[in-house]
Amino acid sequence: MSTVPAVQDDDKNIDPRVIAVFQDIRETRGSDFINNFWRYIAFDPALLERTWGEVKDVMATPSELDPMVKEMIYAAVSIANSCTYCIHSHTAAARAKGMTDAQYADFLRVVSLAAKTNHIVNGLQIPVDPEFDQDAGR
Amino acid sequence: MSTVPAVQDDDKNIDPRVIAVFQDIRETRGSDFINNFWRYIAFDPALLERTWGEVKDVMATPSELDPMVKEMIYAAVSIANSCTYCIHSHTAAARAKGMTDAQYADFLRVVSLAAKTNHIVNGLQIPVDPEFDQDAGR
Amino acid sequence: MSTVPAVQDDDKNIDPRVIAVFQDIRETRGSDFINNFWRYIAFDPALLERTWGEVKDVMATPSELDPMVKEMIYAAVSIANSCTYCIHSHTAAARAKGMTDAQYADFLRVVSLAAKTNHIVNGLQIPVDPEFDQDAGR
Amino acid sequence: MSTVPAVQDDDKNIDPRVIAVFQDIRETRGSDFINNFWRYIAFDPALLERTWGEVKDVMATPSELDPMVKEMIYAAVSIANSCTYCIHSHTAAARAKGMTDAQYADFLRVVSLAAKTNHIVNGLQIPVDPEFDQDAGR
Amino acid sequence: MSTVPAVQDDDKNIDPRVIAVFQDIRETRGSDFINNFWRYIAFDPALLERTWGEVKDVMATPSELDPMVKEMIYAAVSIANSCTYCIHSHTAAARAKGMTDAQYADFLRVVSLAAKTNHIVNGLQIPVDPEFDQDAGR
Amino acid sequence: MSTVPAVQDDDKNIDPRVIAVFQDIRETRGSDFINNFWRYIAFDPALLERTWGEVKDVMATPSELDPMVKEMIYAAVSIANSCTYCIHSHTAAARAKGMTDAQYADFLRVVSLAAKTNHIVNGLQIPVDPEFDQDAGR
Repeated sequence: MSTVPAVQDDDKNIDPRVIAVFQDIRETRGSDFINNFWRYIAFDPALLERTWGEVKDVMATPSELDPMVKEMIYAAVSIANSCTYCIHSHTAAARAKGMTDAQYADFLRVVSLAAKTNHIVNGLQIPVDPEFDQDAGR
Repeated sequence: MSTVPAVQDDDKNIDPRVIAVFQDIRETRGSDFINNFWRYIAFDPALLERTWGEVKDVMATPSELDPMVKEMIYAAVSIANSCTYCIHSHTAAARAKGMTDAQYADFLRVVSLAAKTNHIVNGLQIPVDPEFDQDAGR
Repeated sequence: MSTVPAVQDDDKNIDPRVIAVFQDIRETRGSDFINNFWRYIAFDPALLERTWGEVKDVMATPSELDPMVKEMIYAAVSIANSCTYCIHSHTAAARAKGMTDAQYADFLRVVSLAAKTNHIVNGLQIPVDPEFDQDAGR
Repeated sequence: MSTVPAVQDDDKNIDPRVIAVFQDIRETRGSDFINNFWRYIAFDPALLERTWGEVKDVMATPSELDPMVKEMIYAAVSIANSCTYCIHSHTAAARAKGMTDAQYADFLRVVSLAAKTNHIVNGLQIPVDPEFDQDAGR
Repeated sequence: MSTVPAVQDDDKNIDPRVIAVFQDIRETRGSDFINNFWRYIAFDPALLERTWGEVKDVMATPSELDPMVKEMIYAAVSIANSCTYCIHSHTAAARAKGMTDAQYADFLRVVSLAAKTNHIVNGLQIPVDPEFDQDAGR
Repeated sequence: MSTVPAVQDDDKNIDPRVIAVFQDIRETRGSDFINNFWRYIAFDPALLERTWGEVKDVMATPSELDPMVKEMIYAAVSIANSCTYCIHSHTAAARAKGMTDAQYADFLRVVSLAAKTNHIVNGLQIPVDPEFDQDAGR
């Protein structure tokens, strides 16, 4: 149950911009599958265009970090922000880019340890050591 | 300003367990510096012992993931959970383990894009595609 | 699946205070429909009374802000706090008070951009400009 | 204390792209003041360019929602995500676009009531009423 | 640095409702000290009145739970929501109501373990056991 | 739908360490029921062992705080972190350890009031009173 309906390829009044983005997603990924994220945000073609543009640029273009690592960072944020859909899609993407079960367990160990110490630190309100200052000495 | 005082090496009534953990931190890291996190949680020696044991095991022991990648995942969770101290300490740790400015910018691009789509997905309440089901077919 | 059962109008032992609040909700809204939020918190009549009193006062009484705008602000917080029920009920309320699809897309653009920059700012730990100080000069 | 240094206009090696964005910010806003957000993310010119492009498009371009309302929605998300800098900058922006003290108090009443019911709903795990389904009947 | 100025007892134009609430806070607590929370929300007398009324009713009135336990629950939520002021004020209140250092350490162990498993569960998206259903069989 | 399959007692290749932990859970709790949390994290025996060890130590061992209180603190954090599974399991555990409906309503009143004031405080960015400083005077 969602707040807007999904756009299907055979919708009578489908916007040409939606058709174009769906085609670019298919070509970029080499797959005919369009996952729900794109079908739902397509209720507003401009939102779809901008978001796909950014996801393609950040996640589907070679950059400074390994593609699997980027998916793990994406999943880590999604876990902390409690986004069920995003957790599923980016965990699946990390697996598709090579994440093994052992790496996934390691990932969960780091994520959950971070959450644990985040709460201890917030609870104690520990002051930042001046040694961590990146501005100092520059 | 914190909710407990920090433990200093020359505190008169310092607990022997705190001394032992501080020594292990110094040996493990090859540095005399003890950052505030350890000094503050040392108000309870059992909390210090357990937490150091886990951090040493998860973060300071070779595992399935690259040490720099683990620090980046740690920092990503800390950003989403708004933990100032943790963001500083683990960003500094990622740099110490090799993260360049360009990788850091790439990291921030992924973290912030994840937050952006997390909020779009939560807003639209998009249903998870059955294609992401890891249970299926096993 | 919830942690308490819902209260139905024909429950044998329904508390008179619950009956009174349900009646006031119906009269205030001019509708016979009582949504689940009220039926579930009715497990404790005092919690129901206080909460309805506040919601009626803040959301159903003319105030400084437009009713549709208040529903959008409510939905924005609910998205950031990952409250599925609240997202659905307040997005529906915003629509009922006039929000168009185009406004909804604009709303999502602002919400998701805010989340994006929240994470960049938290990541970089950017200091607040003194120019933003409201205390200054008063 | 931040994780990167701020870029100042008279930095010797300032990137031409940073100079261009700073100039566009000044022209768009009709003010010489560049707030810290832009100075810190300028450590990576590409991050600065993309972010300014999006903020300019979403926040500084006439759209479906009133500019003051957009700043209030932005601030609401920033409060829920605990982003101190963003709360200051967007509360100040809402004021600059006309928000009165009375409207601000009304805003806080809605934001805090939303947070309150978000936690009650999450605690009770209240199921979504089928009446809120936007897909139904389309 | 805050978004509104604090109200001081000797402000020339102090609202009579603010004076009345400050007096009730002093009488209820048996102390002359008015902490900042009340001084800042006093920028809007109606917000001050309603909030004090609720805090007095929930936190300063004997109820089903022990006063120290209520402060610990309050602090736990404040930690998870990253509210520095609230963490300080409610940790101090818990101490004032009897919380020892050993209980505080125990509290932090529970809070941080909860955060840890919250993130593991969100990561794995573990389905709720039907055995936890409180509706069943009623 | 989860990101890993659950481990069942009769799985052909079940790891001996998983069998051992499941047995210890049954003995510690005096019940044959193994809830999903353990069955899913068992995909990685080391993650299962460490997590059970910590949960047993913190939650199932007599300590400074009452067992019911610990479950309520656990549930409070889980609510703020939007962890559906954890809310269900720890609310059920609090009930099993004696929490009445009246105490549960009181708990929800505190949790939701905390969330409300957390958002007011974050919105106003109220400075911490020096009176709350635990370091002072030590």
